[in-house]
Amino acid sequence: MNYPNNIKKDSYKINYGNRGMGLERDLNDTNNYYLLNNIAVIHKKPTPITIVSVDYKSRVDAVIKEAYFKTPSTTDYNGVYKGKYIDFEAKETKNKQGFPLINIHEHQLKHLDCVLKAGGIAFLIIRFTSFNETYLISASKLLNYINNEKKKTVPIKFFRDNGHILKERYNPRLDYLSIINEFYMEGETYER
Amino acid sequence: MNYPNNIKKDSYKINYGNRGMGLERDLNDTNNYYLLNNIAVIHKKPTPITIVSVDYKSRVDAVIKEAYFKTPSTTDYNGVYKGKYIDFEAKETKNKQGFPLINIHEHQLKHLDCVLKAGGIAFLIIRFTSFNETYLISASKLLNYINNEKKKTVPIKFFRDNGHILKERYNPRLDYLSIINEFYMEGETYER
Repeated sequence: MNYPNNIKKDSYKINYGNRGMGLERDLNDTNNYYLLNNIAVIHKKPTPITIVSVDYKSRVDAVIKEAYFKTPSTTDYNGVYKGKYIDFEAKETKNKQGFPLINIHEHQLKHLDCVLKAGGIAFLIIRFTSFNETYLISASKLLNYINNEKKKTVPIKFFRDNGHILKERYNPRLDYLSIINEFYMEGETYER
Repeated sequence: MNYPNNIKKDSYKINYGNRGMGLERDLNDTNNYYLLNNIAVIHKKPTPITIVSVDYKSRVDAVIKEAYFKTPSTTDYNGVYKGKYIDFEAKETKNKQGFPLINIHEHQLKHLDCVLKAGGIAFLIIRFTSFNETYLISASKLLNYINNEKKKTVPIKFFRDNGHILKERYNPRLDYLSIINEFYMEGETYER
């Protein structure tokens, strides 16, 4: 009886995964859940662009006619959880060896380092789509590895050994703050 | 002897003031100072836009051909200072009565309220260009006033009575963290 609906749902899901936006969508859903339940205020930053030409048709309807993407100088996500500053970058890779560092800008690694020095909580969320595994890795562990090993790809074993796996759930979809709470907040409890 | 140079400098300054970008520039200079001196990591967020059409000339040279400005759902500035989350909005007004609330979106006030509830430090920096006075006002004080008084303009007297005046200096240009440190960090010292 319910076949048509079910089929629609499934094909939507498949489509969606193929667009490679899965992780971003999961994180937006999760951040919405945190916001609506007064747990944390964490947003994705807008894409940085340089605007060259704007057509002011009227006072309200300005149309940007020429603009360029800028190299981001910070990470995509930041916000506040229990008064603490939270900052992270999220990336997906199909790579089966590990996480290719070409996927992250040097400015962003430098930014994560600055956040750590200013006392913030900094990490990355990396999804390996080939293995259907998503890891939260602390920025300090990843930066240490990168500085010492000088490799172009951080092997998946590094994430399996040093990261925290994030299981997908119904709601919140990717409960990364439970990891932060357990390992990076000095023993405070995470109440929901 | 130095006339030509001096004239150039001054006319640049005048021009610049006329563009109404003075406060944004002062804050960017200040945030740069904080970053370079390892005091805090605070950035202005990119302008939020909706991209409709992109021309991919080549893999690196994408040109945005049609995009629109979005109403911002958060404030312009956020970051980390001594581990704490800092969030603020900055506005300039020529108005001689006070700060017209039409200058700030309801979403942004709601966002400041959420930040306070999540334990962050939230405030506004308002410059009254007609008086050459710049105030830091705590978000909780301003939100209280707005909720109780139901006025369209917050009178300048409110800022003079409840805000902290920010004096322009050479470097850092507008040292707003000295106010945060003194009044909102529970007595920690602000070392430079």
